[in-house]
Amino acid sequence: MASPDKSERDEFAIIARHFAPLAGTPAARGLLDDAALIEHAGAIVATTDAIVEGVHFLADDPLDAVARKALRVNLSDLAAKGARPLGYLLTLCWPAARRADEIAALAQGLAADQAEYAITLWGGDTVATPGPLMLSVTMLGAAGARTPARSDARAGDEVWVSGTIGDAGLGLRALRGEEFAPAEREALIQRYRLPRPRTDLAAAVAAHAAAAMDVSDGLIADAGKIAAASGLALAIEAERVPLSPAAQAWLARQADRGLALAFLASCGDDYEILLTAPPGKAAALAAAGFTRIGAARAGQGVVFTLAGAALAAGPGGYAHALGAGPR
Amino acid sequence: MASPDKSERDEFAIIARHFAPLAGTPAARGLLDDAALIEHAGAIVATTDAIVEGVHFLADDPLDAVARKALRVNLSDLAAKGARPLGYLLTLCWPAARRADEIAALAQGLAADQAEYAITLWGGDTVATPGPLMLSVTMLGAAGARTPARSDARAGDEVWVSGTIGDAGLGLRALRGEEFAPAEREALIQRYRLPRPRTDLAAAVAAHAAAAMDVSDGLIADAGKIAAASGLALAIEAERVPLSPAAQAWLARQADRGLALAFLASCGDDYEILLTAPPGKAAALAAAGFTRIGAARAGQGVVFTLAGAALAAGPGGYAHALGAGPR
Repeated sequence: MASPDKSERDEFAIIARHFAPLAGTPAARGLLDDAALIEHAGAIVATTDAIVEGVHFLADDPLDAVARKALRVNLSDLAAKGARPLGYLLTLCWPAARRADEIAALAQGLAADQAEYAITLWGGDTVATPGPLMLSVTMLGAAGARTPARSDARAGDEVWVSGTIGDAGLGLRALRGEEFAPAEREALIQRYRLPRPRTDLAAAVAAHAAAAMDVSDGLIADAGKIAAASGLALAIEAERVPLSPAAQAWLARQADRGLALAFLASCGDDYEILLTAPPGKAAALAAAGFTRIGAARAGQGVVFTLAGAALAAGPGGYAHALGAGPR
Repeated sequence: MASPDKSERDEFAIIARHFAPLAGTPAARGLLDDAALIEHAGAIVATTDAIVEGVHFLADDPLDAVARKALRVNLSDLAAKGARPLGYLLTLCWPAARRADEIAALAQGLAADQAEYAITLWGGDTVATPGPLMLSVTMLGAAGARTPARSDARAGDEVWVSGTIGDAGLGLRALRGEEFAPAEREALIQRYRLPRPRTDLAAAVAAHAAAAMDVSDGLIADAGKIAAASGLALAIEAERVPLSPAAQAWLARQADRGLALAFLASCGDDYEILLTAPPGKAAALAAAGFTRIGAARAGQGVVFTLAGAALAAGPGGYAHALGAGPR
């Protein structure tokens, strides 16, 4: 059992200098107290996601982007539950070997996304570690009119997804050396580096979704989770999966269209929203920017078809076969 | 950027086997969803504390005790804010080198304290790490009638502390080889190994305290935090600090009574509640089991006296001089 080392004794100074300016509400008590007092009238949606150096990001990744990713994976979870983000608590495990002034970049990333997503830092804990850098964020949101679970899909529902799928996976391929046109390359890498949580769609999710979740492990793998939790099958038509112009151009270059579509639907890090809804919600979901990609029906697992022929079956089958990509 | 390793792919199985039984409320959605839905009508008090292997516990410490400590440091924070604990979210960074079946002992420790303190697991995140074991707990509680801050002390308040002080520090001395009578040794080591959060006193804190916090870094150091936050001085009389029979026996054996008392008030890990209150609250606080140890007055820092002579001055002065002990 170690006595507190210098890093721990400096915790107060680090907090005061870098984190206190992030705590803009009375609830956080300037981060100088032991707990935050959160006055919120309605139900709360709570989520926690942690990211670890060497597992979820690289040691030389810019720390402002690392901090933003830590917030955004949580923002994405709240959006997929139809909740409006309120604030967060941050646990920071800071490696003894890292220069303390690097924490400034991390705080800048937090500040940028606090402004972008209208959230505040309520509190947290900063500890020294002999291991890798780790950020764990617990984020609380105001529940919407309804908080859809993974288990809320019903046979007869349609399956919808927001935005475009596969761009982050192609961004990783670009980083690993695959050639893309310069403009496409930049867009795909940006998509990989920094999730864009669909907080803009939270109200539509709360109003229209039966089941919902965000797509982080890959469209097929995550559809498999809804299928398993709801006790039914999700049939997804590959040709309906929405693709960006860059992904469409990449797809046109591939010899095996089916394999390529299965890759895009399996590579993960999309941070879009996958949901099911009764057919009567179609007009509202289309107007909100969702694309219908399939239907829920009796059975189990995911059936991923191209021109009516199955490309993959079973929950997450392709995701593991092809590699689910980094989380 | 690593692909998910086996430990991460097994996350779902680990959660299902060991953590799902801990999630006893509908809010947690069986841990099979991406977020918890917490229906609570009033204000929420939120706190986060993390413990790291090699910093806050030893690699060979029993994992059930490690898990309980992770919960109890948070329970102690809530009690000192007058809040009733409701539930928690857990981030677990699990080292690749640890046997996965050790997680069962950790889950047993969580289950034992969930039953003892009537709290539930709402959710969390389990990630693989190349570094040390780390548990980060974010705990939410129902705010009491009042949520005392560190900054709420006023000149003229009396200073009170619950339970007895210094036992955990003596327990560490026993573990490091200092001789104690067998029964005393066992009691002191137990006090060191497992915090006993004063959840029983939360209602009294909410009803009577001006400023309050839990004592984790040592009585003098933590009194210094209230003094600094409130902009005044706390005068503490060493002879009033409540000591257990074991600590009294140890004190009687010490050559320098002043130095010994300063050690007991500096060694930390007490997890008692330190508060200030107007004199009119004296009868209620004494009845609740608090001991009056001093007074708040104009000035700054902590003045720690024995027979009227200062033993230590300044916020945390003795704590650093003597070593604040493990946190």
